[in-house]
Amino acid sequence: MKNTFGSSVSVTIFGESHGKMIGAVLDGIAPGIPVDEEFIAAQMDLRKAVGKISTARHEADQVQIVSGVFNGRTTGTPITLIIANQDQHSRDYGELAYKARPGHADFTAQMKYHGFQDFRGGGHFSGRITAGLVAAGAIAISALRSKGIFIGTHILSCGGVEDRTFGDLRADIDRLNASEFAVLDEKAGASMKERIEAAAAEGDSVGGKLETAVIGFPAGVGEPWFDTLESVISHMLFSIPAVKGVEFGDGFGLAEMSGSQANDPFRAENGSVVTATNHNGGILGGISSGMPIIIRSAVKPTPSIYKEQQTIDMRDMSDTELVIKGRHDPAVIHRARVVVDSAVALVLCDQLAGRFGTDWLVSE
Amino acid sequence: MKNTFGSSVSVTIFGESHGKMIGAVLDGIAPGIPVDEEFIAAQMDLRKAVGKISTARHEADQVQIVSGVFNGRTTGTPITLIIANQDQHSRDYGELAYKARPGHADFTAQMKYHGFQDFRGGGHFSGRITAGLVAAGAIAISALRSKGIFIGTHILSCGGVEDRTFGDLRADIDRLNASEFAVLDEKAGASMKERIEAAAAEGDSVGGKLETAVIGFPAGVGEPWFDTLESVISHMLFSIPAVKGVEFGDGFGLAEMSGSQANDPFRAENGSVVTATNHNGGILGGISSGMPIIIRSAVKPTPSIYKEQQTIDMRDMSDTELVIKGRHDPAVIHRARVVVDSAVALVLCDQLAGRFGTDWLVSE
Amino acid sequence: MKNTFGSSVSVTIFGESHGKMIGAVLDGIAPGIPVDEEFIAAQMDLRKAVGKISTARHEADQVQIVSGVFNGRTTGTPITLIIANQDQHSRDYGELAYKARPGHADFTAQMKYHGFQDFRGGGHFSGRITAGLVAAGAIAISALRSKGIFIGTHILSCGGVEDRTFGDLRADIDRLNASEFAVLDEKAGASMKERIEAAAAEGDSVGGKLETAVIGFPAGVGEPWFDTLESVISHMLFSIPAVKGVEFGDGFGLAEMSGSQANDPFRAENGSVVTATNHNGGILGGISSGMPIIIRSAVKPTPSIYKEQQTIDMRDMSDTELVIKGRHDPAVIHRARVVVDSAVALVLCDQLAGRFGTDWLVSE
Amino acid sequence: MKNTFGSSVSVTIFGESHGKMIGAVLDGIAPGIPVDEEFIAAQMDLRKAVGKISTARHEADQVQIVSGVFNGRTTGTPITLIIANQDQHSRDYGELAYKARPGHADFTAQMKYHGFQDFRGGGHFSGRITAGLVAAGAIAISALRSKGIFIGTHILSCGGVEDRTFGDLRADIDRLNASEFAVLDEKAGASMKERIEAAAAEGDSVGGKLETAVIGFPAGVGEPWFDTLESVISHMLFSIPAVKGVEFGDGFGLAEMSGSQANDPFRAENGSVVTATNHNGGILGGISSGMPIIIRSAVKPTPSIYKEQQTIDMRDMSDTELVIKGRHDPAVIHRARVVVDSAVALVLCDQLAGRFGTDWLVSE
Repeated sequence: MKNTFGSSVSVTIFGESHGKMIGAVLDGIAPGIPVDEEFIAAQMDLRKAVGKISTARHEADQVQIVSGVFNGRTTGTPITLIIANQDQHSRDYGELAYKARPGHADFTAQMKYHGFQDFRGGGHFSGRITAGLVAAGAIAISALRSKGIFIGTHILSCGGVEDRTFGDLRADIDRLNASEFAVLDEKAGASMKERIEAAAAEGDSVGGKLETAVIGFPAGVGEPWFDTLESVISHMLFSIPAVKGVEFGDGFGLAEMSGSQANDPFRAENGSVVTATNHNGGILGGISSGMPIIIRSAVKPTPSIYKEQQTIDMRDMSDTELVIKGRHDPAVIHRARVVVDSAVALVLCDQLAGRFGTDWLVSE
Repeated sequence: MKNTFGSSVSVTIFGESHGKMIGAVLDGIAPGIPVDEEFIAAQMDLRKAVGKISTARHEADQVQIVSGVFNGRTTGTPITLIIANQDQHSRDYGELAYKARPGHADFTAQMKYHGFQDFRGGGHFSGRITAGLVAAGAIAISALRSKGIFIGTHILSCGGVEDRTFGDLRADIDRLNASEFAVLDEKAGASMKERIEAAAAEGDSVGGKLETAVIGFPAGVGEPWFDTLESVISHMLFSIPAVKGVEFGDGFGLAEMSGSQANDPFRAENGSVVTATNHNGGILGGISSGMPIIIRSAVKPTPSIYKEQQTIDMRDMSDTELVIKGRHDPAVIHRARVVVDSAVALVLCDQLAGRFGTDWLVSE
Repeated sequence: MKNTFGSSVSVTIFGESHGKMIGAVLDGIAPGIPVDEEFIAAQMDLRKAVGKISTARHEADQVQIVSGVFNGRTTGTPITLIIANQDQHSRDYGELAYKARPGHADFTAQMKYHGFQDFRGGGHFSGRITAGLVAAGAIAISALRSKGIFIGTHILSCGGVEDRTFGDLRADIDRLNASEFAVLDEKAGASMKERIEAAAAEGDSVGGKLETAVIGFPAGVGEPWFDTLESVISHMLFSIPAVKGVEFGDGFGLAEMSGSQANDPFRAENGSVVTATNHNGGILGGISSGMPIIIRSAVKPTPSIYKEQQTIDMRDMSDTELVIKGRHDPAVIHRARVVVDSAVALVLCDQLAGRFGTDWLVSE
Repeated sequence: MKNTFGSSVSVTIFGESHGKMIGAVLDGIAPGIPVDEEFIAAQMDLRKAVGKISTARHEADQVQIVSGVFNGRTTGTPITLIIANQDQHSRDYGELAYKARPGHADFTAQMKYHGFQDFRGGGHFSGRITAGLVAAGAIAISALRSKGIFIGTHILSCGGVEDRTFGDLRADIDRLNASEFAVLDEKAGASMKERIEAAAAEGDSVGGKLETAVIGFPAGVGEPWFDTLESVISHMLFSIPAVKGVEFGDGFGLAEMSGSQANDPFRAENGSVVTATNHNGGILGGISSGMPIIIRSAVKPTPSIYKEQQTIDMRDMSDTELVIKGRHDPAVIHRARVVVDSAVALVLCDQLAGRFGTDWLVSE
């Protein structure tokens, strides 16, 4: 299964950067969930380009729901969300039909699709395809909220600047979900934007790290093998373009700890079981513990830069140089965070429906 | 699908730490591949406990092949590998029937399995279950080698000590596959062992990082969505107990780079296309580029430590203390590396059979 | 996985009878296959209503390809095919919001979707949803033809009238694919139409049997367990509305034979192996033998009839009567045959890509 | 996925007729279900050879549970059931290494596995492999019974003799489950046995039809596409060796009915909704209606007959003759019925767990 993810709740995505339409089919979501088109539009806006630190391409990204919603609620059958592409400047891409952009998928696409791929704007590899994921994810996020499960992602670092770490999770998540540039410390955010603009000025780009928290997720969901919660979340996250690392809890930091530091002591609190620390990020043995799920994703710098680069001409696989023109983001990290929220929400809906049944998301 | 992973080539694992048998069913592997039982045994030995830095539990771990191999070769039908458990000291585990060990899956298992789980020695969550994966993986590793694809993993860091990074990959992989304690720098290895022993002496434990290289893997394998090579490899790796982070190429390091640093320039070399650097770890857009695949995994410290820990009594979810007895590893990183090799090999066989057909692994 | 079928090549369908759009996403099909929009349109026409023996609803059924095709060829990424609904008369369906039509899915939909389903015109259960399958199937049929694999289906019986059985398969298949009302014996076809019209005149409906032949399919494709060719084909066929029986070769007839009658003797012929008879329908042990694959499907009579029927009012689950109004087919068998062709083609493309690799459908 | 079936509850089978062990891994079944080893043994006995009408091969078929059961109950983790092969007479099979038995999978196995298959006794294609399915199915049948869901199968016809059709389903199912030769009319059963013995005396074999009823299955389970209840049940049934046709309700008989005959009128009865007739076999639109599920399977005659047959020598694909020796069943229909019960039970557990959650089978 390629462009379809999930079992109980699944999402199929389609489209190319410069094709007619992109979109997603969201299947298996419980019937009766209210679908808030304004919320979908708001999520789409979070993914969109913003000001000087983003691409000059502007898409309305209006989501049209063409199936699976009736009288404002999910029917339980496939929800199809389509988004027309409008602002394609395909004339910008001529030379890129045969010169492989370093850091991009042009060369690997050539090896897989033998030249038949739609190369314009990265085609099906474009970050633009995440728009369908965000549209589908908005419905998943709404469904989770109605069950008391909340997700928020901030830019933990960007261009060498660090945001503060999570504190009061409920308040932080609310704050992030209301922010266009998702940081917990506004000063850090301002510095990050400066770094992005500085990179843009040099024709270069920056990456960063995203940190995601999920609260309210019930204990006992996941598997010991092979569908651990970490497995299924990372599977989804690594399909977001530019993500090159995923960790849970203290992640790579755990590798440097001793067992006595890393073990989270259990204790009873108000009738439920919590841990005093959360180094394991809410997941033990692949199964949720009821503690907040903490995920960090590494996002590589945008590979579209304006500096001259060494590459190959794919017509004869000979050496050549490339200077990329066109409209590109000097950073995508601030746009990627809503993609991560959406992706995680889709995975969690699938897990919950599989564990508690297909009606769980709407039952009281 | 829970304990089954893969599509064209799949592996199903079963068993509990103190049950009768553990094992695996390897399905979909091409017919006609020679099965070398000595190599399987050698791989099992690499996973086994070694000296002072490992558990005192000793298992023969003799793999019995009960189906799918005929006249010394794979038949193409399911290969079932079983391993009898022998050295169980279940009497050691009495109190652990109801006290949740911090850092372990005892509490989450209780939330999922409602007390019916086999708690002895961690049951189905035990690292012991990886023995089945190593047995199945040995056949996958052999198959890959016959196609010129080689995998090796070293302990990149342990207890604060760093190994040198990969150099000549072919030589390094050969060296690692012949080593019991897989490091590239023997001095670093000696220091790591000292740290493990020191932790053991304190009743504590250490974790570490593993770095894996795959060479000879063809370009053009993987998917842009959702089964990117990173997605499927991380899915598998995160089901190995104790793995809490996975990254590809420079991974989290890429988040700190600029695009001009991170982009790997292409160039033609001896009739094929290579990149001058390999920050992306052999994967672009979710698809292999033909460059070495580089993976790093974070392994948390063994949660079984001998110090007193705060926890809960699961009979009434009340606070209590726990002192773990029994036989445990002060580190598993040196045993985990062959598990990682095996796991990666299984994923790659699945990808190759899906891409090039079910006979590819044996065709010339 | 619900509305998605297949692994190497998969199809996802969506839409409701009276929603905005219906369609399909075809994924995993090899890159480089020419896409003939005229052929797609011709296949859509075969599925459409014809004259007095079909519904008065008329839909243009114009298929719009919005992704996955570039310069007239498949790219290898998801092909999205959408069809706008136009001729909805939703006012016809008022009472059917709460009265369950016997033989239809209204009651079972209520039990699954709790009243949130789109009940108009059968919603997602409507035969109209097969339009997406036919559009996707047209691409699969084209791909198979370029590899010398041909599929044809005739109405073996309808309203008690029997068509002649298959003779020269290549000629019969060509004839069927050029026929609007697919029979091998035109007189039988004329009689069938009379029976359909007679049923229509009484406000009743008829069913029938379809017989499908596939020629040119290579030997050695399928699995002994659980994905036998019969398993995967029947899985797909039983999701076509109204199909209630599927058999291969002599099917239920085999139950009455002796082994010496049923066994197909092998013999060498022109360098390949054939069987003198084909009682097993080209499949032995779940795997293709290279002989023609023969499939028969039972199609129940259209449940929408104009006679008064006993049923329940789903608002309080009380007894009531129902007289269906609106526009309905007195038979669907003549429209179902292209759905069966399409469905079978999709399954076979998946099997071939899984067996021989994702590029097989275009390689020479 | 080949030898694994199911999603929420899955079964993996392995083994060859003359290999060391055969068996199954049953995964995803809810924790806490009592496992009755005597019932498993009784089910295995029903599958075994009986008297003159079966093979002379005798296997103890003792099922050893090596994982997934703890303190007599399911743990929720994979249950591995292994059965040692004992009574292999492999010397009987010499010539069959290269002569393809008509009606068997020898030739198609050769085309798929290129001569590496274990040909002895049919290897992995052997009906013997169903023993693992029956062992796993016994646990599924027990679980369903505890929820009030009962399954029974009778030999509807064999050698031209017809059994009476189902009457009082609850009583009939109980009677069948207590019968070694499962018929509702003992006289018909006696005649069937005579026909089987007559066929055996001639060195020939007979087939037959099985009819299965499931009662107590809740309404609202299944999917409109592609996982209709008919789809998933037929998928499983067509992987049982010798099954060549599957129908639901009146199946192929529906093709001859008018809509007014075929539609099952709904009515309220004792607070639930029933249908006056059950031509649709308890499934409408792919979803259970709460009425009994009725399934019929066509079983072809055993292909192992003692008459001389034309075939090919697979060493050079030349014509030859074959006279099969060894021990074979003149009929398998009486043994197949418990395989069908088991197979259906496994599918239904998967469906129920997917619909209502993984704990449903044990919750009150």
